[in-house]
Amino acid sequence: MQNSCQNENIKISNAPRFGGEEIRVVEAMIDVIYPSVPFPSNKIFKNMGETKIREMVWHHHGLLLKTKLAKLFPANEDAFAMVVDKSADFFVEALGGGDIFTSVHGEPHLRMRHFKVPIDENDREVWLSMYKKTLKEIDFPLEHLEEFWNWIEPLSIRMINRRTNMEAIKRHYWSSVKKEF
Amino acid sequence: MQNSCQNENIKISNAPRFGGEEIRVVEAMIDVIYPSVPFPSNKIFKNMGETKIREMVWHHHGLLLKTKLAKLFPANEDAFAMVVDKSADFFVEALGGGDIFTSVHGEPHLRMRHFKVPIDENDREVWLSMYKKTLKEIDFPLEHLEEFWNWIEPLSIRMINRRTNMEAIKRHYWSSVKKEF
Repeated sequence: MQNSCQNENIKISNAPRFGGEEIRVVEAMIDVIYPSVPFPSNKIFKNMGETKIREMVWHHHGLLLKTKLAKLFPANEDAFAMVVDKSADFFVEALGGGDIFTSVHGEPHLRMRHFKVPIDENDREVWLSMYKKTLKEIDFPLEHLEEFWNWIEPLSIRMINRRTNMEAIKRHYWSSVKKEF
Repeated sequence: MQNSCQNENIKISNAPRFGGEEIRVVEAMIDVIYPSVPFPSNKIFKNMGETKIREMVWHHHGLLLKTKLAKLFPANEDAFAMVVDKSADFFVEALGGGDIFTSVHGEPHLRMRHFKVPIDENDREVWLSMYKKTLKEIDFPLEHLEEFWNWIEPLSIRMINRRTNMEAIKRHYWSSVKKEF
C-alpha cells in the first residue's frame, strides 16, 4: 500500500489511461500517519509547579487571540476563560500535577474533543509557533524544553481534522528548533 | 502501529496515567485508509454512450441540489452548469469515452480538486446515496451496475477531507447494495 502523502511519492504521471479493456485498480492509500507522542514525565511539574504551568497556557492563548485562530475561541470573555482554564487543567495533569482534568472531564480524548472545530495543517502551524514564542517569553526551565517540545509537536498533529493539501504534515523536530532558544 | 479508526480498536481505557516518573510514548496511529479503487473498463461507455452518461451526471447533481450538499455548488446557474459539465466530462472519460477531461483540465487529481470544499464523512454518505437513487431512476444497464458501484463507492471516500469522528469510514459494498436494484 502506498502512503502517498507521508512519503510524497505520488506517482500520478504513471497512471494508466482510463476506460480500457480491463478494470484498473488504483492502490489503497494512507493520508496522515499520526506520529507517536512521548508524554512527558513529572520533571516539568516538579520544576515549574501548577501556577507557572497555568500562566504558560494563558500566555499561549493570549498569543493565539492575536492570530487567525482567535475565531476558534468563544468571543465571550467568561466562556473564553473557561476554555483556557480547562486547557490549563489538562496541561497541569499531563505534566504530573494529578488528575485535576480527568477527575472532572474524563479521559482527554484530545482529537475527539476538537472535532467540532475545523483545524487544518496551517492552523496547527500557527498553534505550534505560538507555543514556541510562549516558551521564549516565559521563564520555561531550559533543561526541560526538549522533553516538552517533543510532546507538544507530535501532539498538535493529532488535532488536525481538515486536510487542504496532499503534502506530508510538516515536522518541527527539536534538533531544528533548539537553536532558537 | 495501531490503526485505531479503521479497526475501531481504540484502547483508551488502557492508557497509563499522566506525568509519571518516565516519559510515556503513545503509539503512532493511522486515521483513514483510503481503499483501492477499481476503475471500470470501457464496457459501460460502449453500452450507454456519451449522452446517457452525461444525463446520469446531471440527474445526480439535480438530486444533490435538494440535499445539504447544495451549498457546496455555485448558486449561479451558468457556473453550476460548468461544474456539472466538467464532472460529466470526467465520467465520460473514466468510463472509456476518450480524453475529453484530461485534454482540457489535466490529470483528474480528484482529491486535490476537492480540497477547497470541506467534505466530511456524512457529505460522502449523501453523495453516494444520491448516486444510488440516480442509478435506480435512470436506465442504467443492470449488467454493469456492480462494476460501476465498485468504482464510485471507494472513489467517494477519497473526497473526504474533514473528519468529524473517530469511526472507520463506512463501506457500502455491492454485496449489501445489490438487493436494492
